[in-house]
Amino acid sequence: MRMSDLIQKKRDGGVLSREEIRWMIEGYTDGSIPDYQMSAMAMAIYFRGMDIEETYELTMAMLDSGDRIDLSGVQGVKADKHSTGGVGDKTSLVLCPMVAACGVHMAKLSGRGLGHTGGTLDKLESFPGFSIAVSEDAFIKQVNEVGFAIAGQTAELCPADKKLYALRDVTATVSSVPLIVSSILSKKLAAGADVIVLDVKTGSGAFMQTEEAAFDLAKALTDVGRRAGKKVIAVVTDMDEPLGNAVGNALEVKEALSALRGEYRGDLMELCLTLGSQILTQGGAAPDEDAARAMLEKAIASGAALEKFAAFVKAQGGDPAAVYDTSLLPQAPVVLEVPSTAGGYVGRIHAEDVGLVSMRLGGGRAQKDDDVDLAVGVVLHKKVGGAVAAGESLGTIHARTEEAAREAADMLRACFEIGPEKAERPPFIKGVVK
Amino acid sequence: MRMSDLIQKKRDGGVLSREEIRWMIEGYTDGSIPDYQMSAMAMAIYFRGMDIEETYELTMAMLDSGDRIDLSGVQGVKADKHSTGGVGDKTSLVLCPMVAACGVHMAKLSGRGLGHTGGTLDKLESFPGFSIAVSEDAFIKQVNEVGFAIAGQTAELCPADKKLYALRDVTATVSSVPLIVSSILSKKLAAGADVIVLDVKTGSGAFMQTEEAAFDLAKALTDVGRRAGKKVIAVVTDMDEPLGNAVGNALEVKEALSALRGEYRGDLMELCLTLGSQILTQGGAAPDEDAARAMLEKAIASGAALEKFAAFVKAQGGDPAAVYDTSLLPQAPVVLEVPSTAGGYVGRIHAEDVGLVSMRLGGGRAQKDDDVDLAVGVVLHKKVGGAVAAGESLGTIHARTEEAAREAADMLRACFEIGPEKAERPPFIKGVVK
Repeated sequence: MRMSDLIQKKRDGGVLSREEIRWMIEGYTDGSIPDYQMSAMAMAIYFRGMDIEETYELTMAMLDSGDRIDLSGVQGVKADKHSTGGVGDKTSLVLCPMVAACGVHMAKLSGRGLGHTGGTLDKLESFPGFSIAVSEDAFIKQVNEVGFAIAGQTAELCPADKKLYALRDVTATVSSVPLIVSSILSKKLAAGADVIVLDVKTGSGAFMQTEEAAFDLAKALTDVGRRAGKKVIAVVTDMDEPLGNAVGNALEVKEALSALRGEYRGDLMELCLTLGSQILTQGGAAPDEDAARAMLEKAIASGAALEKFAAFVKAQGGDPAAVYDTSLLPQAPVVLEVPSTAGGYVGRIHAEDVGLVSMRLGGGRAQKDDDVDLAVGVVLHKKVGGAVAAGESLGTIHARTEEAAREAADMLRACFEIGPEKAERPPFIKGVVK
Repeated sequence: MRMSDLIQKKRDGGVLSREEIRWMIEGYTDGSIPDYQMSAMAMAIYFRGMDIEETYELTMAMLDSGDRIDLSGVQGVKADKHSTGGVGDKTSLVLCPMVAACGVHMAKLSGRGLGHTGGTLDKLESFPGFSIAVSEDAFIKQVNEVGFAIAGQTAELCPADKKLYALRDVTATVSSVPLIVSSILSKKLAAGADVIVLDVKTGSGAFMQTEEAAFDLAKALTDVGRRAGKKVIAVVTDMDEPLGNAVGNALEVKEALSALRGEYRGDLMELCLTLGSQILTQGGAAPDEDAARAMLEKAIASGAALEKFAAFVKAQGGDPAAVYDTSLLPQAPVVLEVPSTAGGYVGRIHAEDVGLVSMRLGGGRAQKDDDVDLAVGVVLHKKVGGAVAAGESLGTIHARTEEAAREAADMLRACFEIGPEKAERPPFIKGVVK
């Protein structure tokens, strides 16, 4: 077999066989197929696509390139959740304790990643003493005893995906359905859960900028997941404006805690109720979605979800007092309000650009080894459709210096489109694909 | 500027600017842009194409990546010829002396290359003592005195093309019009001629398998060449069966000499008359194509072209006696006829597969440092449309060993399609694009 022949076959619209795909991924993982052939293949796949069978084989080949987590020691159904990524996405911090409080175990491996803020692991390190390094045994014990764990991966899961993703990132081949599906699902299959809910974002702040593309991705994810023997549900959600109001590590943790206290009722909570009700019904903990939602609401109202979260922070070495007293979380020295220059209604908030404000303040990572400033970021006071008076604050900047705060304030102001008409806000949950 | 942004722009159908193209080619040449980004770009160009302006800028950027040959020391018009490559293509060996005998200088740099046989330089080394290493001064002196020279390049012409071509070869991105045009024309512009004739092959043995694709390529070549200030003519010719009858290095030299002696009148001579008449008219040596053809025919009939060839061989250190006595050229020890098992008419001869017979016998190079056996190859006795009786010879194998000859005979037999009906032979010259 020659890689150039396989590239040509895909380039000309052919279907790659199981043997060809496995040979290619094994060769790419061991280095016998060079990056320059793999990137040409990725671009050919970008243009020609892959059918479900090819996408499944690619997923399985990437899965088999590394280790798998053995979750057989966890009692009952194990659920996992993944988001295709967006600005202000702190969903896991709220969803996991809600679901765990309703009796379904969540076993979640997470990352630090590059982006506008740190990853979930960085956010959790806002709690003094919190450790993301958990052995496999301790991880399973914690899931059984607390109901959930969120930790960094120790085993080498899907090295082929790690290598291919880094390549796609610099060759404009990220936004291809079969490549996204195989990247997400290979890792989720390696992480060992039975029920997998996927939050597929659509809009200006997402990979899939159109709803049609997002639904295509959602369908491919569930088709391939089912073929792999898992219960996979994809929820397509809006990412035209940031999720919730906070963008920044400790700021997002504070917002998550506010949601767990029942004080926050916006799009973030709606997302957690939607994803959570899918997990509870698929996991057999609720007879239907209405019952599941009621259970999840009760976990918030009773304080059970917040307690689960405190137990989780404690189990991983963090200070649970910070769950109840958020002044113990990192605080930025400079806080600056951003008054609106115009009055009217918020027609749009450019999610991607709000992310760049956080990035510029030091809240994210441009390169793997960058430090993340956990305290900085933005809290929006207005969302799309909201009325705003001239001089009223659009948001608060949390910064390290006065100068950084002023620069960020100008950037944030430019993220808002304000007009005289109240805009129709599109539905936040676009649909559920099973 | 970021290469990933340029890849994305082309991927999405955008037009690259002069500055973007120059930045990309400079970065690729100096190594700051890695192969894996360039191959993704090449595949994006494969799918999206480039307009004439982009193709021109790519050509000029590749031209400016290296040296240029200064042919100002050559008197009068300097012509050059290039073929997109085919099986049995010994055209330069016949064309250059014909044109030189009619008074237009040919200054040709050639290569060894990979393929079914060696390149023109390998073929010329069939003459004992022949040297392809000619200094720039000696090259110009020879063109002035003999009328033509064919040598290896000493200066570093178009290093960007050299690097990019090697990459395209292993990433299934060879057959893209803008990439072919910029590769061919950057080298031809660097080689310094005023008139450039291009032989664009079409058919199963060529890059451009359909006539439509070949004409698209021919048009792009002439458009970009004109924009670069040169007289560029492209002739589209058939490569469904091998050109002429011989495939193999010394065997092709013998066929070229037979053509120069006026003993061969097939497609090869028709091609030389067509290309040559374009050169003579564009070069101002003939008032029109009919007059040019008559001059070229006379150069053959009078023996002037053959004499030019002998003077050329002598000027580059070869033994001119071998021009008149071909037994002095390399001879293979084993010669085997290949009788047809069927009778009827030759409907097709698979050019590519005949090339592989030569390759298998040792006549070509699979890798850059492979040795080429100059003596081996195939001489066809039948061409498409010819009648053949069962038991009559389809061709002669020239091999190093009996075993190699037998294997090659079986391969050659499979190259022929023989049927009961006399096939309509398609026109050999498909058209001339100016």
